Amino acid sequence: MRVRLGRYAPIVRWFPKYTPTLFVNDALAAAVVTLLLIPQALAYALLAGMPAQTGLYASILPLLAYAVLGTSRTLAVGPFAVVSIMTATAVNQVVAQTGLDYISVAVLLALLSGMMLIALGILRLGFLINLLSRPVISGFIAASGILIAASQFGQMLGMPVQGQTLWALAQRLWELYGEFDRGTLAIGLSSLATLICLKRYLYPLLILIGLSDTASRLMARSGPIVIIVVSIWLSVRWQLSEHGVAVIGRVASGLPELALPHITWQALESSWSAALLISIVAFAESVSMAQTLANRRGERIDPDQELIGLGAANMASAFSGAFPVSASLSRSAVNDEAGAATPAAGAMTALGVALAALFLMPLISQLPRVVLAVIIIHAVASLVNPSSFVRAWRYSRNDGVAQIATFLLTLLAGVTNGLILGVVLSLVMYLYRTTLPHTAIVGRLPGTEHFRNVRRHRVETRSRLAILRIDESLYFGNARFLEDTVAQVVAEQPMLRDLVLMCPAVNYIDISAIDSLELIQKRLHDGHICLHLAEVKGPVMDQLKKTEFLEKINGRVFLSTYAAWKELQADEPESGRRSAHS
Amino acid sequence: MRVRLGRYAPIVRWFPKYTPTLFVNDALAAAVVTLLLIPQALAYALLAGMPAQTGLYASILPLLAYAVLGTSRTLAVGPFAVVSIMTATAVNQVVAQTGLDYISVAVLLALLSGMMLIALGILRLGFLINLLSRPVISGFIAASGILIAASQFGQMLGMPVQGQTLWALAQRLWELYGEFDRGTLAIGLSSLATLICLKRYLYPLLILIGLSDTASRLMARSGPIVIIVVSIWLSVRWQLSEHGVAVIGRVASGLPELALPHITWQALESSWSAALLISIVAFAESVSMAQTLANRRGERIDPDQELIGLGAANMASAFSGAFPVSASLSRSAVNDEAGAATPAAGAMTALGVALAALFLMPLISQLPRVVLAVIIIHAVASLVNPSSFVRAWRYSRNDGVAQIATFLLTLLAGVTNGLILGVVLSLVMYLYRTTLPHTAIVGRLPGTEHFRNVRRHRVETRSRLAILRIDESLYFGNARFLEDTVAQVVAEQPMLRDLVLMCPAVNYIDISAIDSLELIQKRLHDGHICLHLAEVKGPVMDQLKKTEFLEKINGRVFLSTYAAWKELQADEPESGRRSAHS
Repeated sequence: MRVRLGRYAPIVRWFPKYTPTLFVNDALAAAVVTLLLIPQALAYALLAGMPAQTGLYASILPLLAYAVLGTSRTLAVGPFAVVSIMTATAVNQVVAQTGLDYISVAVLLALLSGMMLIALGILRLGFLINLLSRPVISGFIAASGILIAASQFGQMLGMPVQGQTLWALAQRLWELYGEFDRGTLAIGLSSLATLICLKRYLYPLLILIGLSDTASRLMARSGPIVIIVVSIWLSVRWQLSEHGVAVIGRVASGLPELALPHITWQALESSWSAALLISIVAFAESVSMAQTLANRRGERIDPDQELIGLGAANMASAFSGAFPVSASLSRSAVNDEAGAATPAAGAMTALGVALAALFLMPLISQLPRVVLAVIIIHAVASLVNPSSFVRAWRYSRNDGVAQIATFLLTLLAGVTNGLILGVVLSLVMYLYRTTLPHTAIVGRLPGTEHFRNVRRHRVETRSRLAILRIDESLYFGNARFLEDTVAQVVAEQPMLRDLVLMCPAVNYIDISAIDSLELIQKRLHDGHICLHLAEVKGPVMDQLKKTEFLEKINGRVFLSTYAAWKELQADEPESGRRSAHS
Repeated sequence: MRVRLGRYAPIVRWFPKYTPTLFVNDALAAAVVTLLLIPQALAYALLAGMPAQTGLYASILPLLAYAVLGTSRTLAVGPFAVVSIMTATAVNQVVAQTGLDYISVAVLLALLSGMMLIALGILRLGFLINLLSRPVISGFIAASGILIAASQFGQMLGMPVQGQTLWALAQRLWELYGEFDRGTLAIGLSSLATLICLKRYLYPLLILIGLSDTASRLMARSGPIVIIVVSIWLSVRWQLSEHGVAVIGRVASGLPELALPHITWQALESSWSAALLISIVAFAESVSMAQTLANRRGERIDPDQELIGLGAANMASAFSGAFPVSASLSRSAVNDEAGAATPAAGAMTALGVALAALFLMPLISQLPRVVLAVIIIHAVASLVNPSSFVRAWRYSRNDGVAQIATFLLTLLAGVTNGLILGVVLSLVMYLYRTTLPHTAIVGRLPGTEHFRNVRRHRVETRSRLAILRIDESLYFGNARFLEDTVAQVVAEQPMLRDLVLMCPAVNYIDISAIDSLELIQKRLHDGHICLHLAEVKGPVMDQLKKTEFLEKINGRVFLSTYAAWKELQADEPESGRRSAHS
């Protein structure tokens, strides 16, 4: 019973073994993550176009849900910059089309994403994630980082800027440039400088004064909470809001009120596709993050169960009146580094955020908005990783092109279109490659039973025998190219009498390819050439037996290429005589 | 110079060698095809929703254009039932959206299809045809045949029936059923019976009375022209049009007036996608037909040049004020059988049709429409080939499902959507299969240097060594599955010390797969297992050398699996000792 329940609610697997030591570790990690999460939660709520407090709401129940149902021990769930900007893009579109209320559309997106993630998990469709290649993910995340930063530069100038593409954002920024607020810009630039300095110099400084490595590293990450506390103090002291600096303003104190989202057919119809994309990105990010963390500790995660955990988190966010959530890269790393041992750390983080929501809201109302923008800009800078572009490009042009194209398409066409186009492009490039089946004429490595490509190795060949190795399964996409390849081999080897198709890498042959093989057989037959097969795999042989191809073939099927080489050698003298006559 | 010109205008290759004998052969074939083409041209024009005479226009200049630019010697170009119904579907949609004139939209479709075909040919994108699998084509053609027949049954009841799906057509037919015209139905049924009888019994009869096989076969195909002549005679004699039987009515005599189609942005925007689909179907049909004919004669066709020939034919049709054309299956077969020797036969057919357009129009005006409907129904019956469904299903469930799904989707969602969905479905099924890379644990065939699947052959294995053969290129779609497979192998073989990845079928490894391999290497390293590679292909080795993977790997790279087997055996005693200690 426990095994079964443990499969669907992994909490059953770790909670019974919970110890006081684990509790202390988890509590410490939770304290550190909470201090990092509160500013990010507020900032990403604004990024998603939602009231600041919903960021905190998205960081309470969703964390509890994931603690019960998720499989990663240290993944930190909650608001995530890329998902927030996707939410903003999608909600703006739906609102423009339907005139619905902004907040309720965002809540609906969280609900739909959650339901889709759970459905994918129950149907065990986690494999779909495989269609996102790493170059596409990297290109997409980097471009999202730039779009997010660009959208926040407006706050530095004292105005919110909205736009879905780099072009639209640049235009708005240019329009704003003349009328920026000096006080806001000064606060923004000094906060940014402080953040950068704290990150860069605090760690070596703390090490110098004798703190432990882990403690120094964690304290060096406390920059965001430091500038928030300082800027709230300055804001209250000098009444910045009366001097033209935009502040968060009055926010509702207290815990989220649970409610079912209001759903209409019209809203569903116009938002399901955006919800699907958000689910995919949330899942891709979370799974790759969870896998990296699990590898570090020699643990394994279950992608299908991760889908369910993340889906439950999103549904919890919807019931709290908040927006779609995902795993956060930066917070997960901190959680892991700070020594989180079980998902209980996530639950304790939720408790910390709940306390903040209950008691700190009056203070937060005085926080200058520009400070949150700076926190976002600083956080997303790490999403842009130029070396991954260099690495992909150097490794192969295909991967490089896919990454750069996804990056540019996301910048120029927005997050939603960019991701779709990137995935389609990488699939088309893959399909194009499979339509050119890799084949090689092989010869025998002298003295062995091995046959290798004549272009790459010194091998024995014969004028009356050609051995064509087919390196790919045969399907409709490449069947015609095989016809052409065989025709070329025949044209290049005028003395040819036996052609052996060596099929060690052919895993299946679909019916379109069978038609092509029959055509090849017929043409070879007309040219008085025998067609043989070698190294056909068991399952493929079973398939061939269902057709008439094996009856029509005028040659034989050999278990090994070497057997074909030996046996067809025996025929050689006869063929020699024949050619002397012709 | 001639070689170069010959590449782009194949007429240069055959015309200088033209002889009187060839002329006689071509002329005879042209006469037979003309008699078959005239009724089909009129019928398919009505099927496309166009005036009857445009069918003849589509059979003059397009044939001349193809004779100059096409590579197939006997392909018969002109109106084709499936392309006509696709045209009708597309034009009806565009007209409903934009309110443009029906004829000018059809002409624009022909122009756009022509331009697209030529562009694909110049860019040498003929390979795109490979994405249409044979089950998808067969399923699509069969369903189109049924939709075409259903649309013509209305004419048998005395009313035209329009509808894009089987459901819509069935509804319209049901509505009409009460009010059908008895005279029309009688003419229809008797014509159909005549056609069937002529096709079935005329051939043995003619053989019996001593005609040659070819002559008998060709005369047995003359059914359509016979019932047209008879029904015109009956129609004139009994003034059928005054007794409620719909006739073609007055048609303009003479040759088409050449004109540039009228183009607007709006029309372009709403019709380019339909034009693309029409091009693809026209090309797929023509190329597969041309290839079949060429194979019969041991000739070869050039798909890229075929694109250009077919594109020119469609543009010529547009300038003649007609609709998209393609190759016709039935007429090509007749042309070939009647002894056509060069594309000049097509040019002479065009001449025959031109004479008909000049002199026979007054007679055609009295032709009952139902007779053309019967000719269409009879012609498309051959498109529905149930045995191809049985064959695909028996061969493999995947191919069978693709064919049946395309068939049903085309019936239920219309020709355009059906084709798109069929192609997408077959690609998704293919991609799904590649995300499950085929792998096998192999052992040595005793006494040989061969390694085969342990599940299918009696082979030698060792407890400390596992050889995992990877049968597919590694790319983002299957990289994660490889991680899982290796984890499973390690779990099943607790004594494992060396894992050899045997890569004879790995043609490339993309950067996502490199990440997975590095992860596998790290996990194996943590488990004190050495990772080796064997039979890595040259190009893949070049790729691996660009990464750090080969430096990180703790095992070796073997040229052959047998070398790995021998060398790792030498380590065995040592590993034995180690395990004794542990």
